[in-house]
Amino acid sequence: MHLVLHEDPVSGNCYKIRLTAALLGTPLLRKSYDILKGETRTAQFLAAVNPDGRIPVLQIGDRFLPESNAACIWLAEGSALIPDDHFARADMFRWMFWEQYSHEPALAVLRFWTAFKGLDTLGDIQKALLPTKRDSGSAALALMDRQLEKTPFLVGDTVSLADICLYPYTHVAGEGGFDLAAYPAIGAWIARIEALPGYVKMTE
Amino acid sequence: MHLVLHEDPVSGNCYKIRLTAALLGTPLLRKSYDILKGETRTAQFLAAVNPDGRIPVLQIGDRFLPESNAACIWLAEGSALIPDDHFARADMFRWMFWEQYSHEPALAVLRFWTAFKGLDTLGDIQKALLPTKRDSGSAALALMDRQLEKTPFLVGDTVSLADICLYPYTHVAGEGGFDLAAYPAIGAWIARIEALPGYVKMTE
Repeated sequence: MHLVLHEDPVSGNCYKIRLTAALLGTPLLRKSYDILKGETRTAQFLAAVNPDGRIPVLQIGDRFLPESNAACIWLAEGSALIPDDHFARADMFRWMFWEQYSHEPALAVLRFWTAFKGLDTLGDIQKALLPTKRDSGSAALALMDRQLEKTPFLVGDTVSLADICLYPYTHVAGEGGFDLAAYPAIGAWIARIEALPGYVKMTE
Repeated sequence: MHLVLHEDPVSGNCYKIRLTAALLGTPLLRKSYDILKGETRTAQFLAAVNPDGRIPVLQIGDRFLPESNAACIWLAEGSALIPDDHFARADMFRWMFWEQYSHEPALAVLRFWTAFKGLDTLGDIQKALLPTKRDSGSAALALMDRQLEKTPFLVGDTVSLADICLYPYTHVAGEGGFDLAAYPAIGAWIARIEALPGYVKMTE
C-alpha cells in the first residue's frame, strides 16, 4: 500500500505518525507543507487532501485520513502497540483522547507561540490566554507524572500508542517554557521511549 | 459486569455514553454530580473516581475509565457500531478525535456559557473568545454538513460511534446560538439517528 504523510516536519502531531511507523518498520513517503505560510489552506489542499485545512493527513493509496491519532491507530492495528486486553485498550484510547483535549491545546500551542510564532507577535486574546494555557499544561504534565510514578508506561508495563502519541509534545515541552525537571517520572519515561528499537528523533 | 456512569445529566459528553449503551441494550447505573457546584473537584472524587476532576467516568467493576469517547469504545467493541473495514474504522476514530479537538471546544463550550453559566457572567477573556468559538463552531458544523451531503452517516452507509459521539452536542447546537436550519444535511442525519432502535433522548 502506497503511504504518504502530508506533514509539517516541525509538528509534533505529524511526528507521532512517523514515530509509530518507524517503530513498526512501515515505510512512509513524506510531503512537506509550511503551516506558517498557509500551505494547508490553499484551495488545492482543501479540495484534494483535507477540507479541514489541517495536517497531518495520512494518504493511504487514494484515500486521505486526517487526525494524527487516527492515523497512528490505522498503522498500529494488529501490532503490540495496541493492548490485547479490553480494559487496557480502552485506557489507551482514554489517554489519546485526553491528549487531544487536555494536553495538545496547552503544550503544543505554547510551544508554537513561544518557539515558532514568537510571544511578541501574539494578539491580545492570545496574550490573555497565556496563564490559562500555562496552568493547563502544568496540570497535564502533573497528571502524566503521577501515572508514570505507578507504571513504566501510561497503560502499564508495556509501550502502547498512548505513549507514542503523548511523547512528541511532552519531550519538547521545554520549548514552550515548561521545566521537565519538575516531573522526574516523565523524564524516566522519555528515556524508556528513546531506547525503543526503531525509535527516530523528531528532527530525522 | 457492574457498570456505573459517573455523570452530570446535562452534559453531552455523558449522554454519548448513555446513548451508546442504550443502542447496545447495555444497562448502566448512573451517579450524578453537579459540575457548577464543583462536585467533580472534591478530594474524594479526585482520589476515588478521576484525578483529572472531570466527568464522565465509566466505572467498570472496580476500575475507572475517564474520557467519554474511550468509554463509548469500551462499550461498543465487537458491535456493529464499530466498522469491520480497516479504513472505515480509522475514519470513525478520525471523526471522534476531531470531535474532541475541533467540535466540542466550540459547540459544547458555547452551549455551556449560553444556556447554563449565562453570557452576562463571563469573564473578559471568555467574552473575547466568543467570536473565535462562534467561527470554529460554524466551521465544524459546515464540515459535518458537507460529509453528510455525501453519505447518510459520517463514515458511510451505516451508523457508527462517530455519529453517536457527534450527535449530542450537534443536536443541541441551538442552545449555544447556532442555527441548525443552515445545515440541512445535518438535520436529516439527526432524524436518522433519532429513528434508531433503542434511541434515548438526552433528558431521559
